[in-house]
Amino acid sequence: MKKLINKPENVVKEMLEGMAAAHPDLIKVHFEPNFIYRADAPVKGKVALISGGGSGHEPLHGGYVGKGMLDAACPGNVFTSPTPDQMYEAGKVVNSGAGILLIVKNYTGDVMNFDMAAELLKAEGHKVESVVIADDVAVEQSLYSAGRRGVGGTVFAEKIGGAAAEKGWPLEEVKRVVQKVADNVRSIGIALTPCTVPAAGKPTFELKEDEFEFGIGIHGEPGRRRLKMKPADEIVQMMMDAILKDMPLEKGDEVALLINGMGGTPLMELYIVNRKVSQILDNIGVKRYRTLVGNYITSLEMQGASITVLKLDEELKELLDAPVHTPALRWGI
Amino acid sequence: MKKLINKPENVVKEMLEGMAAAHPDLIKVHFEPNFIYRADAPVKGKVALISGGGSGHEPLHGGYVGKGMLDAACPGNVFTSPTPDQMYEAGKVVNSGAGILLIVKNYTGDVMNFDMAAELLKAEGHKVESVVIADDVAVEQSLYSAGRRGVGGTVFAEKIGGAAAEKGWPLEEVKRVVQKVADNVRSIGIALTPCTVPAAGKPTFELKEDEFEFGIGIHGEPGRRRLKMKPADEIVQMMMDAILKDMPLEKGDEVALLINGMGGTPLMELYIVNRKVSQILDNIGVKRYRTLVGNYITSLEMQGASITVLKLDEELKELLDAPVHTPALRWGI
Repeated sequence: MKKLINKPENVVKEMLEGMAAAHPDLIKVHFEPNFIYRADAPVKGKVALISGGGSGHEPLHGGYVGKGMLDAACPGNVFTSPTPDQMYEAGKVVNSGAGILLIVKNYTGDVMNFDMAAELLKAEGHKVESVVIADDVAVEQSLYSAGRRGVGGTVFAEKIGGAAAEKGWPLEEVKRVVQKVADNVRSIGIALTPCTVPAAGKPTFELKEDEFEFGIGIHGEPGRRRLKMKPADEIVQMMMDAILKDMPLEKGDEVALLINGMGGTPLMELYIVNRKVSQILDNIGVKRYRTLVGNYITSLEMQGASITVLKLDEELKELLDAPVHTPALRWGI
Repeated sequence: MKKLINKPENVVKEMLEGMAAAHPDLIKVHFEPNFIYRADAPVKGKVALISGGGSGHEPLHGGYVGKGMLDAACPGNVFTSPTPDQMYEAGKVVNSGAGILLIVKNYTGDVMNFDMAAELLKAEGHKVESVVIADDVAVEQSLYSAGRRGVGGTVFAEKIGGAAAEKGWPLEEVKRVVQKVADNVRSIGIALTPCTVPAAGKPTFELKEDEFEFGIGIHGEPGRRRLKMKPADEIVQMMMDAILKDMPLEKGDEVALLINGMGGTPLMELYIVNRKVSQILDNIGVKRYRTLVGNYITSLEMQGASITVLKLDEELKELLDAPVHTPALRWGI
């Protein structure tokens, strides 16, 4: 294992220190328990959005803390759920009184620990609601989840929910629109190589030189099947077939796309993926309203990509377009 | 070689098609000769900035085409200089009459081909000036360059020059301020792994499991030396020592930082690098005015990082802060 780290047991703490040093205008970091929060929190009258999950998926979630997106992000150890005290303490810091929405990726540990944090916060009089994101069409159950896994759709949920909260919408309305994202977003991923969790020191799985994993999870957990390597266009066609089978799109529909790298994939390859995705959608008359291409939800240094398709309506388009200013996503400000 | 590509000979063309599909509001792509240009070019009264270089370093340069940065970017084949006809044709499209500034990374092929393009454009009555970026302190000569190589400093040169051009400054003034960036910026890179050029099909070099290359070039060309792997903090200290030896900084100086991934490095590791860079600068009383952390100038899927330090004055700070809207760098718009 070769990594630009010091001690494996310190990677999360040192990452957080590096983030605080890079973005002092946007975020602050609280240690023990660990959470990243808006430098201007609590924002008066605004619903507070909190997300979190295992580390190693950066920029998710800490990179999305800031104006128009999350109020706090709670990073667990690498590929490990955050503990309830993180969300509990974060909630107390960022709730201005308008309530808290928890955005939770559907992994068993995450769901359990966010639920526990919600109970702790409610017991102290905080209004708390949750939305669970389960957008990965690859598998119906996984090593880490009961039901579908939460992956790239989370980025859109955080962006759109953050915009609604920033506009001053009440908690029920912010929850409604985040749930709308959850209902209308689908993703699938593939991997060419595994990744290595620092504390483990060896790859999470093995792939032969001529194989790829179709439907990979963001922790390297198995997908649908292991296949012989194919040209990018064939792989993308398989990925889009899986998404479109689950969420059929028609001529005239509008979508937002996230062409996401798993951490070790050159941007060149992601644009080659986007070329084919765009051709497939253009062929069925679906309008590509906005496309993000890059590393948004990663698996350390894994080579691979995921595709996320969000079906839009006028409300989602307006919230997607709203200004955002975070370390990893910024426009309009 | 496992890559998300179709045919190695088509990677640049297909990447450009994917870029055009992702960012139709910002850029257009011209094929044969290949160049990416601002969707609203030529911009009346504005000096046109053109850069370019081998592909495989994305988002450099195509990701920096847009308002407040480049007017055109000319991508060569992977790790291969663009040909003069690319800059020549791009120049004719983007020059509004205010003249053209070429920003050239210091590689022998790039310098020669940009010079030839400049002559062709001048012969047709275009005003053309050039600035060569040679910010890599690792080596004084390299496989690909007479003199120092041009690396991460190019991102700041394009941002700051682009801001000056957007403000309507005349060609001589835009050139002056880009030269000021070139004079005040230093970089150095390291690699943990090599990368594979698609057409070659095998890694550009070999590194043992316990080795890293100190002072690597962006094409995988050798740096200062190959060393046994060390903790991140020790590697960063060596990198900063090299930069600060070449460009001493004093208490009260202000800098912009680019903590850059080579394409295959997790963001977590880049923030761990930034933590140490920040500590070193804080210890000598240097103010970190703005820090960029991410993949800005890459070498395909290489794992590694580079550090770029730009010494600022009031003029550079104002231009760095100015609004920019490109596929890969955006703020204030």
